[in-house]
Amino acid sequence: LEAALSRLFAEGVKVTGAGRTDSGVHASGQVVSLSTARRFPFERLGVALNSVLPPDCSVREAAIVESGFSARFSASERTYVYAILNRAQPDSLLARYAHHVSAQLDLGAMRAGATRLVGRHDFRSFCALPALEPAPSTVRTVRRLTIESQGELIRVEVTADGFLRHMVRTIVGTLLECGRGRRDPSELQATLAGADRSVAGPTAPARGLCLAGVRYRDGYDSFAEPPVFGGRSALRLDA
Amino acid sequence: LEAALSRLFAEGVKVTGAGRTDSGVHASGQVVSLSTARRFPFERLGVALNSVLPPDCSVREAAIVESGFSARFSASERTYVYAILNRAQPDSLLARYAHHVSAQLDLGAMRAGATRLVGRHDFRSFCALPALEPAPSTVRTVRRLTIESQGELIRVEVTADGFLRHMVRTIVGTLLECGRGRRDPSELQATLAGADRSVAGPTAPARGLCLAGVRYRDGYDSFAEPPVFGGRSALRLDA
Repeated sequence: LEAALSRLFAEGVKVTGAGRTDSGVHASGQVVSLSTARRFPFERLGVALNSVLPPDCSVREAAIVESGFSARFSASERTYVYAILNRAQPDSLLARYAHHVSAQLDLGAMRAGATRLVGRHDFRSFCALPALEPAPSTVRTVRRLTIESQGELIRVEVTADGFLRHMVRTIVGTLLECGRGRRDPSELQATLAGADRSVAGPTAPARGLCLAGVRYRDGYDSFAEPPVFGGRSALRLDA
Repeated sequence: LEAALSRLFAEGVKVTGAGRTDSGVHASGQVVSLSTARRFPFERLGVALNSVLPPDCSVREAAIVESGFSARFSASERTYVYAILNRAQPDSLLARYAHHVSAQLDLGAMRAGATRLVGRHDFRSFCALPALEPAPSTVRTVRRLTIESQGELIRVEVTADGFLRHMVRTIVGTLLECGRGRRDPSELQATLAGADRSVAGPTAPARGLCLAGVRYRDGYDSFAEPPVFGGRSALRLDA
């Protein structure tokens, strides 16, 4: 994206992204902001970018915003959606977008675990911490954490004010242990209290994860359902 | 698939596929048959294969069939589904599974063209012919050809007794010319009669195409809706 923008503007451009998308993680609702002094027909920026971007990156819309807006710092919450294919056989056509789990999962146990994670907690057990001194705060507020079954797919949606590195994937990996009967959901309070990565479950694979939307203080919400759940750019605007 | 089978059976295995899937074409309902003298717990063959296949190839089910059955020659009809994303912006998460067309398409014109192609015709204009002497028959019977809108996606389904090389992609490329107003649907009878590849439209890209199902004389139908249309291994069995 920065290469495409730099080409269009004929100057080096840096963008600020709203949310993490590690290697292998998808995004249907990513938001980025940038600042430039160049003149450009900005109403045509989306089309111009899509004509030079590679197929694995596309722009839904572009807009001029007030000065001081930051895709990252003006955001009030982010929503990630994680896809699990829960059936005996894998599905090659979903392999890039869903984590295949062949063991039958107990959704009730996963939901019972999820309720323990909602709220303001120290999520140190659920993140890959960078070695920084002083250590940054690992307290975050998970506002919603829902687990739904859609045929053979399980859809996990997590909304929080912010996320730590690998946080959603570690939450999902830990809830999958509950779903497999390997971890009692009531343990998750102790898992949070342990404040150490080793007490949580494994990090679920990147491929199932999608940054689905970012909400801003003015009410704008970039949410778009990932295609694996049948969503195609259906914007959830409730501003 | 042959490499995986050869590994499991510890002998060279050749399979017979029911329908064409050129490079870049997907399959949600492909059927293959093979013959082996090896003893194997065949009820476990699907699981065993999925454990050694690469992620881009997976097996839904395996079964022992009567001798003389051929996935190709016992088939009575094949169904392909072609996906078109028809909106201004591309969508990276659909890029591998749908052909993006930004110009607004006239579905009525596409359907009017489609009706001209249903039935028993010489589809020589709609295929890439191999240089064989004597030239093989290019007469095929298209039993159904439907065009539906699903939000921003257009779903083209073609069922025929058999297909020639590039036949669905050339049909779609030609119908897209109708949808763009560049070819009058009533011309398609003349396009068929021309019996020359140069009179039909361009070959639509492979990525939008999926071999969705194969029907057999005993009523078995392997149809599975491609994931891009929300289908996940939903078998359409009406035997």
